[in-house]
Amino acid sequence: MNQYCFGVDLGGTTVKIGLFDPEGTVLEKWEIPTRKDDNGNNILPDIAAAILGKMEEMNISKEAVIGVGIGVPGPVDDEGVVYKAVNLGWGIMNINDVLGGLLQLPVKAGNDANVAALGEMWCGGGKGYHNMVLVTLGTGVGGGIIVNDRILTGSTGAGGEIGHIHMEDNEPEACGCGNHGCLEQYASATGIVRLATRKLAATSEDSVLRKEDVTAKAVFDAVKAGDSVACEIAEEFGLYLGKGLAAVAGVVNPEAFVIGGGVSKAGDILLDYVQKNYMKYVFHGSKDAAFKLATLGNDAGIYGAAKLVLNK
Amino acid sequence: MNQYCFGVDLGGTTVKIGLFDPEGTVLEKWEIPTRKDDNGNNILPDIAAAILGKMEEMNISKEAVIGVGIGVPGPVDDEGVVYKAVNLGWGIMNINDVLGGLLQLPVKAGNDANVAALGEMWCGGGKGYHNMVLVTLGTGVGGGIIVNDRILTGSTGAGGEIGHIHMEDNEPEACGCGNHGCLEQYASATGIVRLATRKLAATSEDSVLRKEDVTAKAVFDAVKAGDSVACEIAEEFGLYLGKGLAAVAGVVNPEAFVIGGGVSKAGDILLDYVQKNYMKYVFHGSKDAAFKLATLGNDAGIYGAAKLVLNK
Repeated sequence: MNQYCFGVDLGGTTVKIGLFDPEGTVLEKWEIPTRKDDNGNNILPDIAAAILGKMEEMNISKEAVIGVGIGVPGPVDDEGVVYKAVNLGWGIMNINDVLGGLLQLPVKAGNDANVAALGEMWCGGGKGYHNMVLVTLGTGVGGGIIVNDRILTGSTGAGGEIGHIHMEDNEPEACGCGNHGCLEQYASATGIVRLATRKLAATSEDSVLRKEDVTAKAVFDAVKAGDSVACEIAEEFGLYLGKGLAAVAGVVNPEAFVIGGGVSKAGDILLDYVQKNYMKYVFHGSKDAAFKLATLGNDAGIYGAAKLVLNK
Repeated sequence: MNQYCFGVDLGGTTVKIGLFDPEGTVLEKWEIPTRKDDNGNNILPDIAAAILGKMEEMNISKEAVIGVGIGVPGPVDDEGVVYKAVNLGWGIMNINDVLGGLLQLPVKAGNDANVAALGEMWCGGGKGYHNMVLVTLGTGVGGGIIVNDRILTGSTGAGGEIGHIHMEDNEPEACGCGNHGCLEQYASATGIVRLATRKLAATSEDSVLRKEDVTAKAVFDAVKAGDSVACEIAEEFGLYLGKGLAAVAGVVNPEAFVIGGGVSKAGDILLDYVQKNYMKYVFHGSKDAAFKLATLGNDAGIYGAAKLVLNK
């Protein structure tokens, strides 16, 4: 009998669902809207209906389904309890139990950033590694840490929250978390814009960045075009992120860092800036860590969710 | 039949050995010298002879021994391979296989700092926790990280090397590891002396610390006596260590930090300085972490080694 599993990536706007075989081939992939009204009470029933509908459509029996993994935007403990998913309107809930009850199938839930790390390790930029860190550079800086093929959840689901490692004592602006000087304030898309705005104000040197709205993409495009102010901004970004990841390596000593999120579309040149600075600050036992780009893009979540339930 | 296990703490001068029951009661405890001549080739045979002798003396059969755990001063991977134990003269060796072959018993080896963390969790300051970090403040700063009851070894055995997290950009002196500005340069016994020497040179304020050789113990004794210069030194120590442990929490989100090593004999006042500064810098998801003193002293290694083989 063929075996299957489902991977669900629950976002604030849409739910992505993938049907996988146990080797990591995605057989079907689709989306449904995330209905946040009524305190999000429809979300899990909608997901259950979508999965059961797909099983009926494809004539897949319950016995053939190993289980359903789901990534959720909030801290989730090892038992599948989500404590705060502010965006969804939920209170405290055990997703494994609730969605498992609706489906009558094994369900395993994890935090979305951690689950994405598992996905990149299974089928993406981290393939072949067993100890890796996914660094997601988007609006914020997210982290997902894999130790011996397993997600490091942490005692309250805050494992891998590397975006809030303190990096800078002299930061006047507050981070979204309330602290000042978090890694996220310099290495996220908005952080790079902050660094760029400050650099452009501090120098009178000419730069293509003066002619347009400054974005993280514009900075790295200008770096590729040889703009010297942009190169200084990238250097500063690389210094903060390289130093931050050296601290992460001093704790978990991974085989590889996999860099994803929108900012990572800048490509290998971004890795160069980060790795060069990482090497200056890291303990010699972690100097061999590889630096790779993530490859699964927005699908990392469904891959990782599927792998989560296969690991069960 | 009663069950037993042995825990071995292999140091540069002596080997400590403990005979335990599976509940963590130490039944016998003794030491033998570490014979480092002949490239350390006698060390494991000496340990095997000591254990087999004790079994004969106490009439314990091989069937009654669950196994032998051993903590080694160097990086050890999950298979028991030690890569560098410079102090002992060893090359690369699989300790599980070599000592297991001599004893004809299951053997499990780990790095000594990591093994000590397991010991403190099993029977010491970390009892009752499942996710904790042991911070050993001695000549250097060592770390041992426990995630879900297991040692986090890292991909090359450098997991938990928190003493070499970069903390200070403006440090002129080099750390033993070759980098500049490592946590160890401010939070170890020698680091505290460095902070004290600099503070005493920078101020003309009177202090009892001017009247004697400055040691970490003298600094904390002076703090307890209300010496204001000593309090400033302790504050600076607490700032470095608190900030460093906040970074560690941003990665592994532990339930507790357990502080051991010679410097920790200063007691609760030391915890106060560290925790106060930790709270300023840590991500809110890790603010509840407990700060505890280690309680097993030099026996943490034999306890942890015994637990290592029980976990097998």
